[in-house]
Amino acid sequence: MPESIRFAHRFDGITGSAIRAIFKLIAQPGMISFAGGNPSPAALPDAEAARIAEAVLRERGKQILQYGATEGYPPFLESLKPYAEKAVGCPLPAVLPTTGSTQAMDLLCKALIDPGDVILVEDPSFLGNLQCMKFYQAKLVPVESDEGGLRMDKLREAMERHHPKMLYVIPNFQNPTGKTLAPERRPEIARLAAEHHCVVAEDDPYRDLRYRGTFHPSIKSYDKDGWVVFMGSFSKIISPGLRVGWIAGDEDIVRKCTLGKQSTDVHTANLTQAVVDRFLREDFLPGHLEKIRADYAAQCDAMLAELEKFPEGVTFTRPEGGLFIWAELPEGVNTQELLARAIERHVAFVPGTSFYAHGGHENTLRLNFSNSTLEQIHAGMAALREVVAEALNT
Amino acid sequence: MPESIRFAHRFDGITGSAIRAIFKLIAQPGMISFAGGNPSPAALPDAEAARIAEAVLRERGKQILQYGATEGYPPFLESLKPYAEKAVGCPLPAVLPTTGSTQAMDLLCKALIDPGDVILVEDPSFLGNLQCMKFYQAKLVPVESDEGGLRMDKLREAMERHHPKMLYVIPNFQNPTGKTLAPERRPEIARLAAEHHCVVAEDDPYRDLRYRGTFHPSIKSYDKDGWVVFMGSFSKIISPGLRVGWIAGDEDIVRKCTLGKQSTDVHTANLTQAVVDRFLREDFLPGHLEKIRADYAAQCDAMLAELEKFPEGVTFTRPEGGLFIWAELPEGVNTQELLARAIERHVAFVPGTSFYAHGGHENTLRLNFSNSTLEQIHAGMAALREVVAEALNT
Repeated sequence: MPESIRFAHRFDGITGSAIRAIFKLIAQPGMISFAGGNPSPAALPDAEAARIAEAVLRERGKQILQYGATEGYPPFLESLKPYAEKAVGCPLPAVLPTTGSTQAMDLLCKALIDPGDVILVEDPSFLGNLQCMKFYQAKLVPVESDEGGLRMDKLREAMERHHPKMLYVIPNFQNPTGKTLAPERRPEIARLAAEHHCVVAEDDPYRDLRYRGTFHPSIKSYDKDGWVVFMGSFSKIISPGLRVGWIAGDEDIVRKCTLGKQSTDVHTANLTQAVVDRFLREDFLPGHLEKIRADYAAQCDAMLAELEKFPEGVTFTRPEGGLFIWAELPEGVNTQELLARAIERHVAFVPGTSFYAHGGHENTLRLNFSNSTLEQIHAGMAALREVVAEALNT
Repeated sequence: MPESIRFAHRFDGITGSAIRAIFKLIAQPGMISFAGGNPSPAALPDAEAARIAEAVLRERGKQILQYGATEGYPPFLESLKPYAEKAVGCPLPAVLPTTGSTQAMDLLCKALIDPGDVILVEDPSFLGNLQCMKFYQAKLVPVESDEGGLRMDKLREAMERHHPKMLYVIPNFQNPTGKTLAPERRPEIARLAAEHHCVVAEDDPYRDLRYRGTFHPSIKSYDKDGWVVFMGSFSKIISPGLRVGWIAGDEDIVRKCTLGKQSTDVHTANLTQAVVDRFLREDFLPGHLEKIRADYAAQCDAMLAELEKFPEGVTFTRPEGGLFIWAELPEGVNTQELLARAIERHVAFVPGTSFYAHGGHENTLRLNFSNSTLEQIHAGMAALREVVAEALNT
């Protein structure tokens, strides 16, 4: 090992992910895991993917195996643009396929963020993208939320005070809280962004996973001047292992992301783009979504019913969709300590502190219901309830 | 368009790629292009890939479509490690699959480079990776080469003077020159790197495409202290469209690249890793390489034979492998102007100036022979010879 090696300063604020440490602990047989964010195995269309992958390579193999354009695999661009415009609910000047929507966030930061630039974030927010922003040495400023998501008074105050380069928001069934941004706040965010020259990164991977309540228009659909950039993903509705997402919005911003992508991975694999393209062309999603929504809704309800039985003092969110429920235990309970005892009972979750830009909130935790059967949810939540009860009695 | 948007400073030195402008010009029917770096269509195993993609998804579809580990798809790690150790010629403490070897370079820069850090580069060198280094706001310091690649006296001088963080070198059939680093210089580079605490990025995508001469051990195989990092690619020997490459070396360096990859694309698509894994397990490469080497050698020879007929004052390299020949015209000839006239005759190449860290050298050009048939090479080079002769007579 070269002992005297100096790594780049962008790693200074990066700690090895607490979550990855957990994933090593829970990779034991018999563990019931509410820790990840994985789709259910039943929701992964393996037989269809096998047929489609063979077909696209047989029909257009030479093109798929050759270098492609950074801008995307041409047939996929044809099917993606109308799909994306329907999802976002407005015309999109530019759409770029990305290697998962994680890459969309990475490219947007690459395009915009210099060290020290301020990014406003929900608190808590998606750990992976918080880490991405930290790699760009952004200054993360948390904005307070309530039951309807970001508080508009606090957002206005933060924009006036910090002159942020970007606001990062997950509007539907947020990770980790499961909360949905109130519909009346969406046009207001678009307006504030234009007024303060702040790019909004609207990250919406769960929008098709709504189990109850009514659909809300995107922030992007209220955007008049191009300040809102929308990031979509096929990870939760077709497959995360294929790594296909997209970013859409203003032409200049997307062009900068494309230029950045040239030296990041040249282009997203043509094969994975071609497979998703074929799923779109076969109109696979409507029927598939109907099935997985029914399954996930039942899993979500089962977990909520179990949470009702938890000791007094435990509060939790009631998401209308997505993959996660957020719980808060009485002050003083440390969920990292709780996790150790839960793992002894073969059940796992993610302590909430990791999702806060500046840590703290040790009494919170995130629960995933999509990747467990109803039986696992009942058994795992019963064990967790006992662990929580013990912690509250000591 | 948000007119007042400020993009990040890392774009300050980035001009839209001259090469991409060329590619738009030459995307006309009837154009003979010596401009790209594409494998020949005949070298792309589409039928095999169709069979393999279907098989791996049928056999392990649920695993392939689910989230994978940043560290790589487990079966691929099993086949990649011995493959990589054989290619590099030494044990490798850590190997990480990447989304093409372009991502390997990006992750290595992410791990090591702060703005202003010095990277020593061959002059000329691979445009894509030069751009990657510029995005990290590195200071590129060119080191002079001769027929045997990097000059050791100049490299020693540059290391003493500039305290570089990294040396970027393509040892075999370099892009763009086609030159190969002399074997006796390789242990010397490993020694100098350790002495000066400089990471060597050894980028070797062409190593299996040798048409004549003898094999030379890698720089990495002489590395005692972990300062040399090796980057490999399946783009030139299986498929560039799959975007599968790898980076190997010291455990701490590869771990930092892995951490950086978490928020770049989480992991390389499991499907493309699984396809390459199966190609390796089926021992597809030896027979395939024999075939493509024979084809490419004939194409290379045909282009060299045509270059012999060029007017006096035109010099060119005689590569022992790879995809490129480098030519130099008499001082005063501008190959960007020449390109405009060549395109009128339906033949294209890349002007050499783009490959120099600081521009200049307007009398140079790069010719690719892998993506043209023998007939196209004869016709295209005859047209190019006339264009060159005209330029020399005016």
